[in-house]
Amino acid sequence: MDTFDAGLAKVFESMSPHMRELGFEVVSITHGVCIAKIAYRPDFIGDPASGVLHGGIVTSLLDSAGGAAVLSAVHEPIALATLDLRIDYLRPGPPGKPILARVECYKATKHVAFTRGVAYETSDSDPIAAMTATYMLHTRIVRSAEETA
Amino acid sequence: MDTFDAGLAKVFESMSPHMRELGFEVVSITHGVCIAKIAYRPDFIGDPASGVLHGGIVTSLLDSAGGAAVLSAVHEPIALATLDLRIDYLRPGPPGKPILARVECYKATKHVAFTRGVAYETSDSDPIAAMTATYMLHTRIVRSAEETA
Amino acid sequence: MDTFDAGLAKVFESMSPHMRELGFEVVSITHGVCIAKIAYRPDFIGDPASGVLHGGIVTSLLDSAGGAAVLSAVHEPIALATLDLRIDYLRPGPPGKPILARVECYKATKHVAFTRGVAYETSDSDPIAAMTATYMLHTRIVRSAEETA
Amino acid sequence: MDTFDAGLAKVFESMSPHMRELGFEVVSITHGVCIAKIAYRPDFIGDPASGVLHGGIVTSLLDSAGGAAVLSAVHEPIALATLDLRIDYLRPGPPGKPILARVECYKATKHVAFTRGVAYETSDSDPIAAMTATYMLHTRIVRSAEETA
Repeated sequence: MDTFDAGLAKVFESMSPHMRELGFEVVSITHGVCIAKIAYRPDFIGDPASGVLHGGIVTSLLDSAGGAAVLSAVHEPIALATLDLRIDYLRPGPPGKPILARVECYKATKHVAFTRGVAYETSDSDPIAAMTATYMLHTRIVRSAEETA
Repeated sequence: MDTFDAGLAKVFESMSPHMRELGFEVVSITHGVCIAKIAYRPDFIGDPASGVLHGGIVTSLLDSAGGAAVLSAVHEPIALATLDLRIDYLRPGPPGKPILARVECYKATKHVAFTRGVAYETSDSDPIAAMTATYMLHTRIVRSAEETA
Repeated sequence: MDTFDAGLAKVFESMSPHMRELGFEVVSITHGVCIAKIAYRPDFIGDPASGVLHGGIVTSLLDSAGGAAVLSAVHEPIALATLDLRIDYLRPGPPGKPILARVECYKATKHVAFTRGVAYETSDSDPIAAMTATYMLHTRIVRSAEETA
Repeated sequence: MDTFDAGLAKVFESMSPHMRELGFEVVSITHGVCIAKIAYRPDFIGDPASGVLHGGIVTSLLDSAGGAAVLSAVHEPIALATLDLRIDYLRPGPPGKPILARVECYKATKHVAFTRGVAYETSDSDPIAAMTATYMLHTRIVRSAEETA
């Protein structure tokens, strides 16, 4: 991590109340790739019969890691917003274990950045979920223009 | 709501620790259509500058409402799992207001059910987010078969 | 159809070599909703055992109807490009019958337009496939800016 | 390619009327990864002003390469059907050049197989489009069961 990426990690961990509440932790962030983690907690369980995590936790982790990856790729402190997100759930998330996400921003144009990633518990080659998402860049300006359009 | 749907509403509100934690509330559920609600809370904020909800909250709401809609449509207490989920974020969620979701299950086959829905604050014709998701049915049996395959 | 929409229909049917080759026909277009049709042809078959249409034909029809719907919604002759497209295939397309698509553009912002639609043979309430797609607007300018970025 | 994969390549190139019409060619197929190609043709053009390929051609190529990748992965001559497909269009396809697709099947369960891939003209690290798709396995049996359900 360079200084910018280190700053990003800190911002993502501490600035968003919801990610702070979930205990979102940046493991590494550099060159448009973010690895992030959320610890297992009983209140994250979706299905009490199995102890499996709620899909929304996995999605929140992937979505936030994706936003961090985009900022690392464009290497500028711009405002952005998720434009769309697709998750394939490949298998249940493991009860009792932290869950990691690895998301890369593999293309950024002037207005849109493209990401892909996976969630996993031990290896990103054995994913729990696969994600692709796009993010709209410079949203604070864009969105206000839209609202008045 | 008939008895089955009323039971479903209760199950969705109380059985999943994560949805209970988020304060997931079923407004109505009948004939494969579920309307659900999550109240605004400061710890749901994604972007502190704007007070806008984290996308993960919207996604969790839509995903859970979709699961409830599927169960209402098949009208049987089967196990299911989200297979894939796509969200388009149309505009920021409003600060300070509850958010609703309306999801319908418009087709169910033997193994897969298809849903579509929106999240909104006042009217489902002015959505915050649009969602399509598919759910795998009878997953407890299916998944174990898969794991041993 | 007003004059603009009638012009759109003509442009979509005649200007794109691929859509002309497929026999793409606009049934109606107005207020951001496009209904379009492709006749069945033996060379559109995907699976010779069943005579079922190739998914690519269904997708091409939906994608093009979506583009037409967006132009009708913004009511300006702008350049656009599909940004992303999701198709859920609900059941096989019927052998021997024309296939229709109904796509609506339900939101357009300054840069991005959102659509949803279905493909069907007789009624849009019994769809063969469901689609959501987003389109980037003003792409001729945007794309060149991107390429030099 | 082993004998099974070589047979697959032949089946995909010759059996589907639509893929034959498009000139779909399997470059390689092995261990769940398929590389396929479609040559540029004037009747594949989507936008005559730029000569850029219609998105439907790119989608058909990716969808078919995905089906082939799944069959190579499960290594059995089963019936399958695309369940859902998502394409992100990253940049226009180049006028005048063949287009390739590389799709891998990275997970197959009893009922569903998951794929991801890209379309490109020279290198898969500089994609024109990115795709994720799921395929329902054993559909001939499954679908008839569904239809009677």
